[in-house]
Order: sequence, then C-alpha cells, then structure tokens
Amino acid sequence: MTDAPYELYYWPSIQGRGEFVRLALEEAGARYVDVARGPGGMAAMMKMIKGEGTHGIPPFAPPFLVDRALVVAQTANILQHLAPRHGLIPDDEASRVAGNQLMLTIADLVNEVHDTHHPVATGLYYEDQKPEAARRAHGFTSERLPKFAGYFESILERAKGRHRHLVGASLSYVDLAMFQVLSGLDYAFPRAMKHLAPSLPRLLTLKAEVAAQPRIAAYLASERRLPFNEQGIFRHYPELDLAARH
Amino acid sequence: MTDAPYELYYWPSIQGRGEFVRLALEEAGARYVDVARGPGGMAAMMKMIKGEGTHGIPPFAPPFLVDRALVVAQTANILQHLAPRHGLIPDDEASRVAGNQLMLTIADLVNEVHDTHHPVATGLYYEDQKPEAARRAHGFTSERLPKFAGYFESILERAKGRHRHLVGASLSYVDLAMFQVLSGLDYAFPRAMKHLAPSLPRLLTLKAEVAAQPRIAAYLASERRLPFNEQGIFRHYPELDLAARH
Repeated sequence: MTDAPYELYYWPSIQGRGEFVRLALEEAGARYVDVARGPGGMAAMMKMIKGEGTHGIPPFAPPFLVDRALVVAQTANILQHLAPRHGLIPDDEASRVAGNQLMLTIADLVNEVHDTHHPVATGLYYEDQKPEAARRAHGFTSERLPKFAGYFESILERAKGRHRHLVGASLSYVDLAMFQVLSGLDYAFPRAMKHLAPSLPRLLTLKAEVAAQPRIAAYLASERRLPFNEQGIFRHYPELDLAARH
Repeated sequence: MTDAPYELYYWPSIQGRGEFVRLALEEAGARYVDVARGPGGMAAMMKMIKGEGTHGIPPFAPPFLVDRALVVAQTANILQHLAPRHGLIPDDEASRVAGNQLMLTIADLVNEVHDTHHPVATGLYYEDQKPEAARRAHGFTSERLPKFAGYFESILERAKGRHRHLVGASLSYVDLAMFQVLSGLDYAFPRAMKHLAPSLPRLLTLKAEVAAQPRIAAYLASERRLPFNEQGIFRHYPELDLAARH
C-alpha cells in the first residue's frame, strides 16, 4: 500500500451523503483530501464524473472516493470498501453482510428524509413543492420514522447488553452512520425526535458514545465539519416537523 | 457446501425487488424455494422478519435470502452475496466494486420509479395521491429517466465494442438487473421508452441478449415469472406516461 491519501469528492457546501464517508475516514485516522472544498475542486469533480471511473464505469453522482486506481461511488459501496481496511467492521463474512444490509437500510431512510422536502422533483426548489412536502412529511414523521427508528432500536435491544453496537462487539461504520442519521433527524425534525426519544434509549446512548470518540469529537469541533443547512438532505423546515401539540 | 436450496422470501404476487434476485437464481441454475408463494409461506416470511436474522439483525423488509445460516436482506446485498458463487461477476476486486456501484445506481432508479406513483406515502393508495404523482411522473419521464438511461448507455458506449456487457466481458448480475429495469420501464412508460429508444441502441441490444439466454428465456416463459401488474413497482398508469404528442 502506498502512502497516497484518499481523495473524497462531494459537494463542498453540505454534509449530505458525503458525511457518512467523512466520518469513517476521520474515525479511521486516514489521510484524505476533500477535493471539491479546495481550489479548482469543483472542476476536478466534474471532470471525474465525465471520466472513465473504474473499468469504464464512472460515478453517476457524488460522493465518490479515489483509492489509487479505484474510483468508488455510491455511499454504501464506498464504506464497504473502506471499513475492512481500517478495522471499522469485523472480519467475518456474516458481519460484513449484516453491516452492508444495515447500511443500505440507513440509506433508504436517508432517501425518505430527502423526499420530505423534495417529493415531486429533485430539480425543483422546496418552495415549488410545499403542499406535497407537507403531506409527505406528515407520513414520514407519523409512520415511516417511528418504523425505521424502532427497527434500529430493536437490534440493540436484541443484543441484550452483550454489546452496545449495531454490528459486533466494537464500533463499526454502521454505528458512525447511525450517529449521523440521528444527528440529522435531530436537526430537521426536533419535535418528532423529542416525541420518539423515550422509545429509543439504546440508540441515543450509541449516538452519545460515537460523539465522544476522541477522533469524532475532534472532527465535530473542527472546521472540517460543515454545519447542517437548508441545502442539504437534513433541512429544518418547522412546518414539516411533527405538529407542536401531538 | 451442502445441497440445501436457497430460500427466497418476497411478496408472492408481484415481481418487485424480488425479481432481481429471481433472475440471478434462474440464470445461475440454482436450486431455490420461493417461500412466500408456497403454502404457509406468508406466515413463514413474517416470522423471519420478527426473528433473529444474521447476528441478531433481521431484515427490515423483503426481499431476503436464506443461505444456510445466513439471512441476507437488501436487494443489492443479496446479489453481491450470490454473484461470486455462481459466476455472475468477474473475480477481481475492481469488477465487484464497479458492479455493486452500478447495482446501487439501478436501485436508485427503481426507487424513483416507485415514487412516480407513490410520491406522498407508501401507506396510501395511488388514488389518494394522483395529482402529486402526475407532477412527480412528469419530472421522471422528462428529466430523471433520460439522465439514468443515458448514463447506462454511456457505459456500454465507452466499452467501444470490446464487449457488450456492463461489467467485464461476460454476462453479470448487473446485466440481468438492467434487463429487468428496462422491461419494467417498457411496461410502465411505453411512450417515454419509445421516445428514448433511438438514443439507447446498446442497452436495447443488451436487453434482447439477456432475454435470449436459454435459462432466462425458459424462466420468462414459465409460471414462475409473475406478470407485471398495478400492485408492483412498475405500474402502467397511462396518465403518468409521457404525453401522447411529445
């Protein structure tokens, strides 16, 4: 293995799906360049999207990671590539299969969060689809979010104190991703999350433990961590949150 | 390896996401039981969803595959598990990474197809979200579908006749998945696909070649292949297709 740093390509002004990769790289203590946030970075990103990718298969969209000759796109695919190299998933096949399964379920939840503010078209502004967004967000906060959150909580509950991580006995990239989703949900839907909190004791403990990991804590306090904002996936539009009196 | 057949669990009356797994199992010539389509199958499926899964991580939703002690959920994860065992992806790491990347991009397209008829909530009927569906479908047929289709066509174009498959020099599970998506799009959006056809010569050739594979042809002609219908992901609602005069 050479000492060349990883190159991460993602939109420079949002956490978005790139943040799942950033958290894994940070916890790994890996050297990486967040290319699009540097000079000429956006042009470099666009060039890669029009390029050859791996085996003539370029990314469809950011995020993507360059690891020497490999160009790896799709968030769950990037994490699956990185995790075994940095001790962020146990070595056995069953853990890797289960980890990828959980990560893809987290990705499904992230897609549903995105669609609360963009139910009609990604190419339109939120302001052009507010009535539809209100309907979609109602279904999300009242049914889908409790269903997903209850599912993830049940996995920690099944472990019955044997361990407090989602996959195996120590921190994995799936725990990092869960921290990110819970943080984003707290930002976007504070009332819905406050309402759910009593039913999610184990997930909230996991979230606090991830935030307290030394490398993660240092990252979150740094300028490398972008703030949540209303251009990303997790947006705080109070009118889309659970009604004030529920 | 024992001779125990795979067990596939999926909703018994639709192709849906389970069809991507069925096509791989059929092309592999693998022995499998489509559990929920047999007697007591739905009860068995529900029991598995409430069960222990792999390492205490059960599926969030169908489809899932039982391979001896492993319970594998999430379509792309199931295919990634099966493909190397049955020669449906080249052996090298780069091909596997690129194959999974393409499969996840196909899964994104499938999600967007689903949301054309369910933009507001999965739990509601199409009839309860028709105006929103019309808006979403317009954006899909006019922008998203051409973008996805053009991307996949460009991958075959880049191969410049060296091969006519998406990953590597022979048929892979990604080609099977592309066949399924193109078939579903033909069913759901015949006018939009007719409009796009002249720009997709390589994809349409690939689709015909997959359909002509002996095992796939036999499967498609059998009762094991469910018809497309209006309970699945690919639904033919003429009002959501491209306008008649475009």
